[in-house]
Amino acid sequence: MPHEYKIASMPGDGIGPEVIDAALDVLDAVARYSGEFTLSFDNLLWGSDFYKATGTYLPSDGLETLKKYDAVLFGAVGAPDVPDSVSLWELLLTMRGSLQQYANVRPVKCLSSIEPVSRHVRPRDIDWMFVRENSEGEYAGQGGRTHSGFGWEVATEVAIFTRHGVRRIMRFAFETAASRPRKLLTVVTKSNAQRYGLVLWDEIAEEVSKEFPDVKWDKMLVDAMTVRMVRNPQSLDTIVGTNLHIDILSDLAAALAGSVGIAASANIDPTRKSPSMFEPVHGSAFDITGKGIANPLGAIWSSAMMLEWLGEKQGSMLVMNAIEKACAEGNTTGDLGGKLNTKQVTAAIISMLAN
Amino acid sequence: MPHEYKIASMPGDGIGPEVIDAALDVLDAVARYSGEFTLSFDNLLWGSDFYKATGTYLPSDGLETLKKYDAVLFGAVGAPDVPDSVSLWELLLTMRGSLQQYANVRPVKCLSSIEPVSRHVRPRDIDWMFVRENSEGEYAGQGGRTHSGFGWEVATEVAIFTRHGVRRIMRFAFETAASRPRKLLTVVTKSNAQRYGLVLWDEIAEEVSKEFPDVKWDKMLVDAMTVRMVRNPQSLDTIVGTNLHIDILSDLAAALAGSVGIAASANIDPTRKSPSMFEPVHGSAFDITGKGIANPLGAIWSSAMMLEWLGEKQGSMLVMNAIEKACAEGNTTGDLGGKLNTKQVTAAIISMLAN
Ligand SMILES: CC(C)[C@H](C(=O)O)[C@@H](O)C(=O)O
Ligand SMILES: CC(C)[C@H](C(=O)O)[C@@H](O)C(=O)O
Repeated sequence: MPHEYKIASMPGDGIGPEVIDAALDVLDAVARYSGEFTLSFDNLLWGSDFYKATGTYLPSDGLETLKKYDAVLFGAVGAPDVPDSVSLWELLLTMRGSLQQYANVRPVKCLSSIEPVSRHVRPRDIDWMFVRENSEGEYAGQGGRTHSGFGWEVATEVAIFTRHGVRRIMRFAFETAASRPRKLLTVVTKSNAQRYGLVLWDEIAEEVSKEFPDVKWDKMLVDAMTVRMVRNPQSLDTIVGTNLHIDILSDLAAALAGSVGIAASANIDPTRKSPSMFEPVHGSAFDITGKGIANPLGAIWSSAMMLEWLGEKQGSMLVMNAIEKACAEGNTTGDLGGKLNTKQVTAAIISMLAN
Repeated sequence: MPHEYKIASMPGDGIGPEVIDAALDVLDAVARYSGEFTLSFDNLLWGSDFYKATGTYLPSDGLETLKKYDAVLFGAVGAPDVPDSVSLWELLLTMRGSLQQYANVRPVKCLSSIEPVSRHVRPRDIDWMFVRENSEGEYAGQGGRTHSGFGWEVATEVAIFTRHGVRRIMRFAFETAASRPRKLLTVVTKSNAQRYGLVLWDEIAEEVSKEFPDVKWDKMLVDAMTVRMVRNPQSLDTIVGTNLHIDILSDLAAALAGSVGIAASANIDPTRKSPSMFEPVHGSAFDITGKGIANPLGAIWSSAMMLEWLGEKQGSMLVMNAIEKACAEGNTTGDLGGKLNTKQVTAAIISMLAN
């Protein structure tokens, strides 16, 4: 009997529905083609339109509803007429936090036919796995404003680092590094200037490293890390850091590797108590919404990560190989130099599944 | 009568003394050559050796002593056997804060003969002026650790943003943008995730922009900003942001433009109540200390910024032109592909002053 997975599909805003449609088509095709599993999808229309109609991004039982699924496939959130701080905190950041998806995983590599940006870099020099702490740190949500609007106003942003939170992400990162061929980990901090939470990161890295004697690891300051990514990309493999630091570095990575349009991510609860959530990195991109030209590769790659997380390694590899081949043959959207639209790229990938 | 300036020279640690020596030689030469000003230097040996001998980085009257000078030329601080969080907070960050050098200015451009890293970029596409808030934000120094070492430990890093502090750096940035030919300013925040201090940044940018109707400005999120720097560098000119955000982006900028070894910075008190401090960005670099091969261009460029700030625009331009010419003729250190050592590069620049 093929295993059946129940997936919550949350297309959200902007180009979200266009790329999630593409991902669902690919997932349907790979399930049929492999025969090893089936997928059923429920479409949850929580996003900015829902908010404008109801005053809330998530219905009151929304998180409970999500917990009934094996995984969540998420498009994008954010609308021109809602402040981003509202849409993101009420939907995306609430889900990441409440479902304790504490590991945000972002693979970045150069797909065939996509040249890295740097003159000094060959495509195979970039094959990185970013592990972003996804539940605390600079995104803990604490802080406030006092004397708002007056000349003596003070605003704070309080980054919270718990030993529990840092240890679990550090273990996850060392495990990730140990599972990859090169077994290399770089721990990013800014502990020269940030003397409390980031020094805690350094200490916990030392501690946890003892549990993983076969992982080679080093430390980098976040500012110097940008230089290393540009000048010496082949020295890096798995990379772990705080919520904000890796937010910045993983966007840079996608740009250096060729395009943010292909960047995929997984918001993972490694304990598997809650469903994990898979989302392209690109966001709602209202400037190209409705034109049918959005690059679906970020969403399709995220679906491949979902299959892998569900245990369907072969299905996941089929999708990744199809993406690689479609790129190698130039079947890409304009942002990658190709001439196809969203549906044509999707069709090309589906036709490659059988190869 | 030529104006006489009193300069505090603080070579500090690692390659600091080597590059500051080079800068002093160039400054001496340009003063002699131009005849419009004279410079006297006092050598202040406050750094990690001083700390190891006395237990403190700055003597108790150190800040008062510094206030007697017209400017400070600083090399680098940081030693392998002192935690960076100690050396930086006791010396560099104390000076920046106590002397209210609230504007950290970092020009980044491609010098002749140095190719930008990106395949898609021509040298003239990169000509950026970074303005970094240098006195508060993520470097306010607040935070702490509770239940240290226990499983339930919590550490915080508290970023502090005052309306006063944000307004003064925003005005400085708009003024800087207004003084440059393109009159373009990009304000970097992360106000979608950081809802208090960074939303304050957005609001103050709107307010201050009204005072500068001829400056064209836009807003970018710090993560997306890395992508724009890589893909679309020519769309950027002056850039302002928080202490941490611009720390990261300015290192990335230097790497994209060719080398961190040439990056210069000025820690400015725009009110001129305290002396401003000029420092290369590269740091102490103990791995190459004592070999005589450090790139002196960061320190020499910083000296040119010092002359400009003192009002010696012609002297400053002489130095910048000499740097440009030395690079164009390939008179560079190994990090820039050249074959010269520190002293030879310095001699080449001095010989170009007269051209
Ligand atoms: C949209 C934004 C809040 C989000 C983040 O910063 O986490 C995005 O940039 C990302 O990287 O997923
Ligand atoms: C050494 C360090 C504290 C410093 C900083 O982060 O300010 C350096 O990176 C810089 O950019 O001047």
